[in-house]
Amino acid sequence: MTTTNDRPRLGVGMVGYAFMGVAHAQAWRNAPRFFDLPMTVDMAVVAGRTESAVRAAADVQGWRDVETDWKALVVRDDVDLVDICTPGDTHAEIAIAALEAGRHVLCEKPLANSVAEAEAMVAAAEQASGIAMVGFTYRRVPAIQLARQLVADGRIGIVRHVRAQYLQDWIADPQAPLSWRLDKQKAGSGALGDIGAHIVDLAQFITGEHVTGVSAVLETFVHERPVASSFSGLSGSGDAERTGPVTVDDAAIFLGRMSGGALATFEATRFAYGRKNAIRLEINGSAGSLAFDFEDMNVLHFFDAAEPAGTAGFRRIVVTEPEHPYVGAWWPAGHGLGYEHAFTHQVVDLVGGIASGVAPTPTFADGLAVQRVLDAVERSAQAQSTWTPTGKES
Amino acid sequence: MTTTNDRPRLGVGMVGYAFMGVAHAQAWRNAPRFFDLPMTVDMAVVAGRTESAVRAAADVQGWRDVETDWKALVVRDDVDLVDICTPGDTHAEIAIAALEAGRHVLCEKPLANSVAEAEAMVAAAEQASGIAMVGFTYRRVPAIQLARQLVADGRIGIVRHVRAQYLQDWIADPQAPLSWRLDKQKAGSGALGDIGAHIVDLAQFITGEHVTGVSAVLETFVHERPVASSFSGLSGSGDAERTGPVTVDDAAIFLGRMSGGALATFEATRFAYGRKNAIRLEINGSAGSLAFDFEDMNVLHFFDAAEPAGTAGFRRIVVTEPEHPYVGAWWPAGHGLGYEHAFTHQVVDLVGGIASGVAPTPTFADGLAVQRVLDAVERSAQAQSTWTPTGKES
Amino acid sequence: MTTTNDRPRLGVGMVGYAFMGVAHAQAWRNAPRFFDLPMTVDMAVVAGRTESAVRAAADVQGWRDVETDWKALVVRDDVDLVDICTPGDTHAEIAIAALEAGRHVLCEKPLANSVAEAEAMVAAAEQASGIAMVGFTYRRVPAIQLARQLVADGRIGIVRHVRAQYLQDWIADPQAPLSWRLDKQKAGSGALGDIGAHIVDLAQFITGEHVTGVSAVLETFVHERPVASSFSGLSGSGDAERTGPVTVDDAAIFLGRMSGGALATFEATRFAYGRKNAIRLEINGSAGSLAFDFEDMNVLHFFDAAEPAGTAGFRRIVVTEPEHPYVGAWWPAGHGLGYEHAFTHQVVDLVGGIASGVAPTPTFADGLAVQRVLDAVERSAQAQSTWTPTGKES
Amino acid sequence: MTTTNDRPRLGVGMVGYAFMGVAHAQAWRNAPRFFDLPMTVDMAVVAGRTESAVRAAADVQGWRDVETDWKALVVRDDVDLVDICTPGDTHAEIAIAALEAGRHVLCEKPLANSVAEAEAMVAAAEQASGIAMVGFTYRRVPAIQLARQLVADGRIGIVRHVRAQYLQDWIADPQAPLSWRLDKQKAGSGALGDIGAHIVDLAQFITGEHVTGVSAVLETFVHERPVASSFSGLSGSGDAERTGPVTVDDAAIFLGRMSGGALATFEATRFAYGRKNAIRLEINGSAGSLAFDFEDMNVLHFFDAAEPAGTAGFRRIVVTEPEHPYVGAWWPAGHGLGYEHAFTHQVVDLVGGIASGVAPTPTFADGLAVQRVLDAVERSAQAQSTWTPTGKES
Repeated sequence: MTTTNDRPRLGVGMVGYAFMGVAHAQAWRNAPRFFDLPMTVDMAVVAGRTESAVRAAADVQGWRDVETDWKALVVRDDVDLVDICTPGDTHAEIAIAALEAGRHVLCEKPLANSVAEAEAMVAAAEQASGIAMVGFTYRRVPAIQLARQLVADGRIGIVRHVRAQYLQDWIADPQAPLSWRLDKQKAGSGALGDIGAHIVDLAQFITGEHVTGVSAVLETFVHERPVASSFSGLSGSGDAERTGPVTVDDAAIFLGRMSGGALATFEATRFAYGRKNAIRLEINGSAGSLAFDFEDMNVLHFFDAAEPAGTAGFRRIVVTEPEHPYVGAWWPAGHGLGYEHAFTHQVVDLVGGIASGVAPTPTFADGLAVQRVLDAVERSAQAQSTWTPTGKES
Repeated sequence: MTTTNDRPRLGVGMVGYAFMGVAHAQAWRNAPRFFDLPMTVDMAVVAGRTESAVRAAADVQGWRDVETDWKALVVRDDVDLVDICTPGDTHAEIAIAALEAGRHVLCEKPLANSVAEAEAMVAAAEQASGIAMVGFTYRRVPAIQLARQLVADGRIGIVRHVRAQYLQDWIADPQAPLSWRLDKQKAGSGALGDIGAHIVDLAQFITGEHVTGVSAVLETFVHERPVASSFSGLSGSGDAERTGPVTVDDAAIFLGRMSGGALATFEATRFAYGRKNAIRLEINGSAGSLAFDFEDMNVLHFFDAAEPAGTAGFRRIVVTEPEHPYVGAWWPAGHGLGYEHAFTHQVVDLVGGIASGVAPTPTFADGLAVQRVLDAVERSAQAQSTWTPTGKES
Repeated sequence: MTTTNDRPRLGVGMVGYAFMGVAHAQAWRNAPRFFDLPMTVDMAVVAGRTESAVRAAADVQGWRDVETDWKALVVRDDVDLVDICTPGDTHAEIAIAALEAGRHVLCEKPLANSVAEAEAMVAAAEQASGIAMVGFTYRRVPAIQLARQLVADGRIGIVRHVRAQYLQDWIADPQAPLSWRLDKQKAGSGALGDIGAHIVDLAQFITGEHVTGVSAVLETFVHERPVASSFSGLSGSGDAERTGPVTVDDAAIFLGRMSGGALATFEATRFAYGRKNAIRLEINGSAGSLAFDFEDMNVLHFFDAAEPAGTAGFRRIVVTEPEHPYVGAWWPAGHGLGYEHAFTHQVVDLVGGIASGVAPTPTFADGLAVQRVLDAVERSAQAQSTWTPTGKES
Repeated sequence: MTTTNDRPRLGVGMVGYAFMGVAHAQAWRNAPRFFDLPMTVDMAVVAGRTESAVRAAADVQGWRDVETDWKALVVRDDVDLVDICTPGDTHAEIAIAALEAGRHVLCEKPLANSVAEAEAMVAAAEQASGIAMVGFTYRRVPAIQLARQLVADGRIGIVRHVRAQYLQDWIADPQAPLSWRLDKQKAGSGALGDIGAHIVDLAQFITGEHVTGVSAVLETFVHERPVASSFSGLSGSGDAERTGPVTVDDAAIFLGRMSGGALATFEATRFAYGRKNAIRLEINGSAGSLAFDFEDMNVLHFFDAAEPAGTAGFRRIVVTEPEHPYVGAWWPAGHGLGYEHAFTHQVVDLVGGIASGVAPTPTFADGLAVQRVLDAVERSAQAQSTWTPTGKES
């Protein structure tokens, strides 16, 4: 907490402290250092099952206190907001409990592991006094915000094409070990829910439209993997003597139709050797085009079809100007941001929303909209790519 | 013809002399200047319906004589090879007549406007004494040849993903006029057959596999367009007073499965503002990856997963070394080639095949394989993206 | 401070709190959160001339206390290390006082505004018990560290060429206002010392060699500028009614010779429209090449001449693997870092050096080596580009 | 020759038929096929010392006749234009003889091996009835022409910086053999005259200014090389048993001042591993910037400082539109050109100039202007980088 002043206090309790928890804690620490928040953030408590581990995490991440049961965390007097950083199978229960306890909620994506859970969460959010936000953090990369602005301002016209890919390679090696992310019970799905969810959300966010239907193929290339000695996030080496089944998809490809009529292609895979975290979006409209690749995250490419043909070309906009979303709070032009900054921006907008009483997007309803697409993808894939409406027409 | 020597003469008769004819004629002229061909090329005759126009074209392009009826051309004594550069609706009739007359045939792609026609052409080719080749010219871009070699040499292992796009923007403007390429009767299909055919062929060529099934969506964004005063290839301005219907697809997107199990995504569109002729291929395998973009046609990107992680990265191979396919015949390293050079390479391989009696690929059977995919795409699109086998299992 | 444990405490006092101070404070806060430091950092005190302003900065940046006189700061009992973030004209006095008081020192670059001052600082450092480091922070961008490793490992062989550019455009507009960075009294020089210093240091660091002589041209394109209402770092709009003189160079270009015989070209300018913070380094050796551009700071390009010509090419190494310097402490592969992370790495190495008693580079002697080059550049420029030795032969 | 019509005939005689001769011959053949020339080109005769070799070349390249003495060629009745493709030491004698014989002349660059020769050539050209052009062919790459147009139209304002590099690596390997290009007697200089000449000319052409002075360093990294069994252009393997001296520079770096006040840096080297023919130009002005790299020769990057900061960025202009210089005569948008096309454009403009009587640039005076810069570079390098005026003030 930066200061004792007359700003209202916002007590934060975080559940889970691994990869996502590290990123969220960094954001809670950073936001008041670079942005003038309307509330004073108090990093009150973090919850984890193993006391020694959660204490160590609290120490490193800067939480005042710990709990070993999230149920205790959500009802603490000093917790105004519950920040859920656990695997997807626990999101619904925690979020609903927190909302019912009158807390604000920030829930990591995907919102849930099923549409039914997500619907229950949306219903809880509608009943609740607190604000509910889902952590589609990439929305808050400045270049993505700029892309949204340009579309909203009509700079690319009517959207004709969306081309969205999320390419990784961290399990392309068959010897990469099992982790909870490869366990359907915990993760809900594989590449589809983990990374495909992001590009579905980004496509919907940037265009301001919804995916109305899909045709999909899911694939698991490697069905058995070594069991890792410890489930430690994205890496680690497998235990050669024992293997276990992969129960999720390694890759998902699907066609989609946007509510405004555009054609969309989506691809999420963990088997694209050489691509580490390549979130690629390309959007063509009747008046221009946009292109983005997270491998070059401070850049947005923009083609303006109104320019004379002789000097038209994709502009490589380095999105580090004071004019650009969020950027003015950081460094001078050209001094680029990194992955973690979007989490700070998320905190900034969430705290602003709580202070003003206006819920920031993406709401749980936005999370449900993504979940419906993921669900339609799974049903389409099971039905041999049959076109499957998402249940959300324009 | 470069020389009077003891090499056998190859008399060439070309049917059609517009965009593709210009490119083919340039190739016939260039090939003997840069490559040591085993035959002496005689650019004997070109056929077109309007005598004055075909005479002017013959003059500019370097043909000795003209015909106004292709049927006369195919049976001329001085024609050993018929080079078909007309729209797709005429391919089957001309090619079959030429083959039956004992001529070799080079036929522009797509092989035909229907599978039935393509099958008849393959049957004719099987019966014929002449060699039959289809003009999937992009195969002969040096970077594409290198890609094929690397896959064939196992440098990327088992193919997991194919990502293929062909993006143009020449009719993104609704005022772009009608041309024969927008007329289903003549062109068979729109973006699908014109440019989608190329990426299907390239995906099959580079991987050495076939597309076994697809799920597809076709779309026409602009249904009425101004009628151009003259049908002059890709450009021209419309006649504002009269419009006509677009009867083909403006864009095609489809999922595919390769015979080796890989997932594939394909997209062909003429509505991607800012992308002029962006043929993009990215292939991920169990041992590496490849990436190509025709906008930077002298470059192939190659990721070798066997490299240590600390120094691994996509290599930007500038495919202009003497070691690279075809390149040694041209300029020193770094002095890049252009679009037209692949046509010259096509002639080189075709003449070499005729001289040796070994038919070069792509054969009519390769053309039919593409046609089956295009046909499956159309059927899938009509059946709401239902998964549609191409009839060609692994 | 993250923890109460048995690690020794390191009390930090920072002088100056503007742009560089913000970056340094962020580093002091971040380092213990992501790296397992051997000491416990205590952000004890920050000094600034105006009490209200320094208190506000302390509050936002997380310093426990404030001083309005740096002389009081350097002798405080709770200050073990003095972190100097003021303009260059004050570096020598503060650093020498701090060293004489037995404090460790981290001093922003350039080390001083003259060789004489820098020499005095080196002499003080040699006498001192404390460790003295100069803040050439870009050395600690992971891609730069990797570049150094590859050179040190002989991967590019004998260095033949260094090509170094630092391109900005923040005063390309003649209406951009005066700031202390355009005042020779405070800044010592313009683009030369501010940004040219970085590329000289990087060239020397990566090659492990020194610049032995230079031939230079300095230029000021805009001699009068509006006076800004407030001197607030890099931006702000000028006050139209009053102008003042620019007393430093706007751009510096110079040739150099490296101690190993390589040819070098250097260019530092604030007048390269469209280039925001483009630090570009390209190094060619007898066995390979390296290329870096800070506009894409998570990437290093490496050409290995030992590869067969047919598959050789610059490898685009995305320097975000756990194997890469510093990266393992942050996020998974592909989740890039930003500008500020190098400051955290600087703190990590400095604290490690203090704990172990081994001074980390760049030392004050490294800072002096840069200063000698800058000085030779100024002398050469005054003498019509006459070749000017730096006084440091191989 | 494409046609018998009433256009005047232009008989061409070429001297030399190696690398440059191949490129020139291709241009003479191509120009009438794609451009509507006002004269009918007759490829009359080619001269070379060895009859069998020149006959073979004539055959492959399409020349009607041969001469073994260039002196016979220049006075032939059927030769109106002498195209000089020999090494630089012969340019002056041939060109002057041809001009005195009333022929037009196209002379490969550099114009000569010394300023004195170049001056004599300019004097001869001024006296002559024929048109004299020097072959700085890269001027006629469409992207370069577009760059010139944008500068001439004021789109980048007053030029502040020129950054010009020509990077190759064909002799980076010390085992690369000797060739005439490494022999001072024949080539005049090494990287300086061979490739440095091009970037000096391009810098002068695009800016419309002159280099008024320079400070330079020349270097030879490898002093002895294997003697090649045959002098065959750029490649070939050396004969291990015998070595010979390299008598030219391997690399040249120099600072320059443009006549409009801009600072310039130039670098020409054959030791930049991984760069094959990287001609890089970057020009910053008071209103915008341009960037070009021949490795991506169909692209020009343009930054327009008049754009709002939020959407400003370098535009990647794919210079393949019908609106672009020369491009309309070739292929549709996006179907890029290659190295050789600039030679065709050179022929087009030369023939146009001859027909209209208006000498096209670059004239011999332009060639002399480059020669003066190269000469000043050599003198500066000999005088320890002392600033050396080119003798051509603004």
